[in-house]
Amino acid sequence: VTFTVDELAARVGGEVSGDGALRVAGVAPLEDAGPDELSFFANKKYRKDFERSRAGVVVVEPGVEAPPGRTVLRVVNAYLAFAKISTLFHPARAARPGVHPAAVIHPGAKIHPTAEVMPLATVAAGAVVGARAILFPGVHVAEDARVGEDSVLYENVVVRERCVVGRRVILQAGCVVGGDGFGFAFDLEGAGEGPRHYKVPQSGIVVIEDDVEIGANSCVDRATLGTTRIGRGSKIDNLVQIGHNVELGPLCIVVSQVGIAGSARLGTGVVVGGQAGIVGHLDVGDGVRIAAKSGVMTDVAAGETVSGSPSMPHSQWLRNQGAFARVADLRREIRQLRRDMDELAAALRDGKRS
Amino acid sequence: VTFTVDELAARVGGEVSGDGALRVAGVAPLEDAGPDELSFFANKKYRKDFERSRAGVVVVEPGVEAPPGRTVLRVVNAYLAFAKISTLFHPARAARPGVHPAAVIHPGAKIHPTAEVMPLATVAAGAVVGARAILFPGVHVAEDARVGEDSVLYENVVVRERCVVGRRVILQAGCVVGGDGFGFAFDLEGAGEGPRHYKVPQSGIVVIEDDVEIGANSCVDRATLGTTRIGRGSKIDNLVQIGHNVELGPLCIVVSQVGIAGSARLGTGVVVGGQAGIVGHLDVGDGVRIAAKSGVMTDVAAGETVSGSPSMPHSQWLRNQGAFARVADLRREIRQLRRDMDELAAALRDGKRS
Amino acid sequence: VTFTVDELAARVGGEVSGDGALRVAGVAPLEDAGPDELSFFANKKYRKDFERSRAGVVVVEPGVEAPPGRTVLRVVNAYLAFAKISTLFHPARAARPGVHPAAVIHPGAKIHPTAEVMPLATVAAGAVVGARAILFPGVHVAEDARVGEDSVLYENVVVRERCVVGRRVILQAGCVVGGDGFGFAFDLEGAGEGPRHYKVPQSGIVVIEDDVEIGANSCVDRATLGTTRIGRGSKIDNLVQIGHNVELGPLCIVVSQVGIAGSARLGTGVVVGGQAGIVGHLDVGDGVRIAAKSGVMTDVAAGETVSGSPSMPHSQWLRNQGAFARVADLRREIRQLRRDMDELAAALRDGKRS
Repeated sequence: VTFTVDELAARVGGEVSGDGALRVAGVAPLEDAGPDELSFFANKKYRKDFERSRAGVVVVEPGVEAPPGRTVLRVVNAYLAFAKISTLFHPARAARPGVHPAAVIHPGAKIHPTAEVMPLATVAAGAVVGARAILFPGVHVAEDARVGEDSVLYENVVVRERCVVGRRVILQAGCVVGGDGFGFAFDLEGAGEGPRHYKVPQSGIVVIEDDVEIGANSCVDRATLGTTRIGRGSKIDNLVQIGHNVELGPLCIVVSQVGIAGSARLGTGVVVGGQAGIVGHLDVGDGVRIAAKSGVMTDVAAGETVSGSPSMPHSQWLRNQGAFARVADLRREIRQLRRDMDELAAALRDGKRS
Repeated sequence: VTFTVDELAARVGGEVSGDGALRVAGVAPLEDAGPDELSFFANKKYRKDFERSRAGVVVVEPGVEAPPGRTVLRVVNAYLAFAKISTLFHPARAARPGVHPAAVIHPGAKIHPTAEVMPLATVAAGAVVGARAILFPGVHVAEDARVGEDSVLYENVVVRERCVVGRRVILQAGCVVGGDGFGFAFDLEGAGEGPRHYKVPQSGIVVIEDDVEIGANSCVDRATLGTTRIGRGSKIDNLVQIGHNVELGPLCIVVSQVGIAGSARLGTGVVVGGQAGIVGHLDVGDGVRIAAKSGVMTDVAAGETVSGSPSMPHSQWLRNQGAFARVADLRREIRQLRRDMDELAAALRDGKRS
Repeated sequence: VTFTVDELAARVGGEVSGDGALRVAGVAPLEDAGPDELSFFANKKYRKDFERSRAGVVVVEPGVEAPPGRTVLRVVNAYLAFAKISTLFHPARAARPGVHPAAVIHPGAKIHPTAEVMPLATVAAGAVVGARAILFPGVHVAEDARVGEDSVLYENVVVRERCVVGRRVILQAGCVVGGDGFGFAFDLEGAGEGPRHYKVPQSGIVVIEDDVEIGANSCVDRATLGTTRIGRGSKIDNLVQIGHNVELGPLCIVVSQVGIAGSARLGTGVVVGGQAGIVGHLDVGDGVRIAAKSGVMTDVAAGETVSGSPSMPHSQWLRNQGAFARVADLRREIRQLRRDMDELAAALRDGKRS
C-alpha cells in the first residue's frame, strides 16, 4: 500500500509544504527513513536528525522551521498524526477465526466463532470469549471469566476466575488479571500452633473496562470483596502492580513499575510516572499528575501535580530540591555565621570593657 | 449455606449486640452489603460507609460506637474475625483428583493420586507432586523439584529443577521459583575476545517452607551454592524480587515490588513495605519494620523501624522530613541571619569608631 | 569428576599453599563445604566463616592471610576463579536434540536438528531456532522471530514476532521480549466519542545481541519504529523494564527492578543498581555507574558515578546525605544563631544607649 503525501494530509487534517504528490510507502525514524518514507519530528532533542534525515516527508507541528527543500506535513498534534498514519501501514492484526486443535477448550466454555484461539491456550468451564478476540499461545482464561469483543490477549496472559475483560482491550504477554489480593490478618494464636498470617479470602473480581491496555507481566489483583476496576481507555505499562479493590478512573496513564496499593481510588485522566507508589485507601483526584518515583502517602486533590517521596506539590518539591542540592552549602554558611557571631560577641564584650 | 449471627459470633469468640438470630448468607463490603450479609468496619476512614450500610450485621472492635438499631458482632480483632467468617462462605477450592490428558507428565515424575493437574501443566522427570496439590494450566515443575501437600500453583508458575515447595504453599500466577541468581564475575581478558561478564553457575536451590504465599510474577532466585530460603508462613506480594542465597525468616510480610538482594538475611516477622530495597549481604533482625520505598543499606537491629533511602531509624527520618520540607525556609532564614549579622557588625564598627 | 587442587590452580592461573594433591569433588559455601570441597573467600564480612570452614581448599586473593594448616588457592580474581572452577563441576545443561511431541511447531518454522524443544513450547510460522538452542516448556517464539545458536529460553519465555535473539543468550523464565512499547498519542477529539489515548503502532523489533542474559519476568519492549537493542554480553536481572527504542551498550550490568524509559541510550559497560530509573531520551555514557534507587533525569557523561533521585554526582550526593542526615540539627543551630543574634543586637543597642 502507498499513499501520496496529500492523501495522508487529508486524513490527518494537515497541510503540506513541498511535494504533495510524493508516494509514501512506509514510516520510519528520522535517521533511518528513506525518500519514500514518512517520519516525524516532535522532540527538539532530535533537531539534527531532522535536518539530516533522508525521509521523503516529515510530520511537524505548525511552529517548526523546516530546512529548504524538505517536504513537511504540518499538523497541530504531530505525534497523533504520525500515529494515525503509522496505523495505515501497520494495521492491527485481525483475528483468524478458529480454535487451534492444540488449544484446550472446556465443553462448558463459549468461544465466538469469529474469535481466534491459538495453540496451548486454555478456556475453562463457563468462560466466554467474544467476537474477533484473539488468544495467543499460553493464554489461560479461567472459570466463568469473560473476554470481550476485539480484545487481544498476548502470550501467557492469565485471566482468573469470574474476572471480566471488556471490548478492544489489549493485555500484553504475561499480564495477570485477578490474582489474589494481598490480604492477611495477623492471628496471634493461630490454630494452636503459634502466630500466623491468616489468609483473607479474595473472593471479589477484576473488571477491565473497554479500550484498556495493560503491559507485559503487570498484575491486577482481584478484590477482597467486590471489584477492582480499571476504567475505560486507561493505559497501563509493564510490571505495574494494581492492588485489590483499587478503582482506576478512565483515561489514566500508568507508567512502568508503578505500584498502587489496595483500595486506592484514582480519578479520570490521572498520569502516574514510572516507579511511583501510591499508598492504599487514598483518593487521587481527576487530572492529577504524579511524578516518576513519587511516594504518594496522602490524598491528592484534583488537578494537582505532585513529586517526591513522601509526595508534595511539585512547586514545593522544586523549591526544596533547589535547597536540598545545597544543603551541604547551608551547613558551611551556618558554621561561618557561628564564627562571625562569636567574633562579634567577643568584639562587643571587648567594646564594652574598653 | 447460611449461619446465624450468634453462630458466627461463637466461631470467632465475639459478642452480639442486636439480632443474634439473623441468618447471614454472605459477606460484602459496607457499601454493597444487603440485609442478609455481614460486613466489617475497621478503618475509620470508612465511618460514613459504616453508618449508611444496609448490612445485616457488621463486625467491629470493642471500642466502636454503633448507630442505633445496627446489629454488630464485637470482637477484639475485627479483621481476623471477618477473614474467618469470609472463609466459611468462600472456602478454598479443593483439588479435584486427577491428571488432565492435556497435561504432560514425565514417566519418571510422581504425582500423588489425590493431586489435581490441569491441562498444559508439565511435571518433569524426578519431580514429585504431593497429596491434594493443585497445578493450574501452564504450571511447569522441573526435574527433581518437589511440591508439597495441599499446595496450589496458579497459572504459569515455574518451579525450576531441584527446588522444594513445602506444604500448603500458594504461588500466584506467573511466579518463578528457582531462576538463576544474578551472578557474574568480571573477566577482563575473556576467552581471548576481550572483556566479558563470566556467568557464575547457580547450582543451589530454593526452599519454600510450609504455609508461604508468593504473589503473581514474583521471582525467587536459586542460590549460587546452597539454598535460598523463604521461611514458614511468610507472605510475599506480587512482583517481588528475592535474590540468590537470601534467607527470609518465618512470618515475614513483603509487600509488592520489594527487592531483596543476594545473601541478605531477614529474621522472624520482618515487615517490608512496598517498593523498598534491601542491599545484599545485610542482616535484618527479628520484628524489623521497613517503610515503603526505603533503601536499606546497612544492618538493622531487631525491633527497629526504618525509613528513607538510605534508611535510618524512623524517628530520625520523621525529624528530618519535618526539617526537609522546610529546607527552602532554612535557606531564607540563613540569608536573613547573614544580613542581620552584617548590619550588626557594621553597627558595632560604627559604635567603636564613634 | 574430581580434580586435584594443583589441576584447578593450573586452570585458573593460581598458586597453591598447602596440599596441592588434594582431590576436590565439588564446590560449596564456606559454612557448608566439607574436606573434599572447594570454597571461596572474597567478602571480608565472612572472615569468621573462612576461619571456621571445613573446606578442603579455599580460593582467596593474594593479600589474604590464611589460618595455619588451611590449603588455599591464591589468584588475582578469586570470584572469577571460583566461577570457572564451579563451571567444571556444574557445566551448563546441553541440548538433548529433538522436538517433544507435545510441542507445537508450525510447518513454516525452522528448528535446527540439534536444538531441543520441550513440551508445550510453540514456534510460529517463519520462526527460526538455531543449533543447540533449548526451548523449555511454555516458551513461545512468534512469527518470523529468530533464536540463535546455543541460546537457552527457560519456561514461559516469550519472543514476539520478528524479534531477534542472538547466540549464547540466556532468557530466564517469564521474560518477555518484544511486547508493545508504551506509546499513546492523546487524541482530544477521539473518534467522535470524546478524548482517548490513541495507540501508536509498535512496529519495530527487539534485537538481543550475543551472550546477553535477561532475568525472570523482565520485559524488553519492541521499538515503535526501528530497533530496541541489548548490546553484546550485557546482563540484565529479574523484573527489569526496558522501554521501546532503548539502546543498551555492550557489557552493561542492569540489576533487578530497574526501569529504562523509551529511547534512552546507554554506552558500554554501564552499571545500573537495583530499582534505579532512567528517564527516556537520555544519553548515559560509557562506564557510568548508577547507584541503586537513583532517578536519572539528565544525561550522564562517560565515567561518572551518580546517585540519588534526581541523580547527581555521587560525591555531591554523599556530601548532601551527610548534611541531610543532620538537617534537623541545622534547624536547631539556626534557631540558636537567631537567639544569639537577637541577644547581641539587644546588647549592642544597650551598649550604645549607655
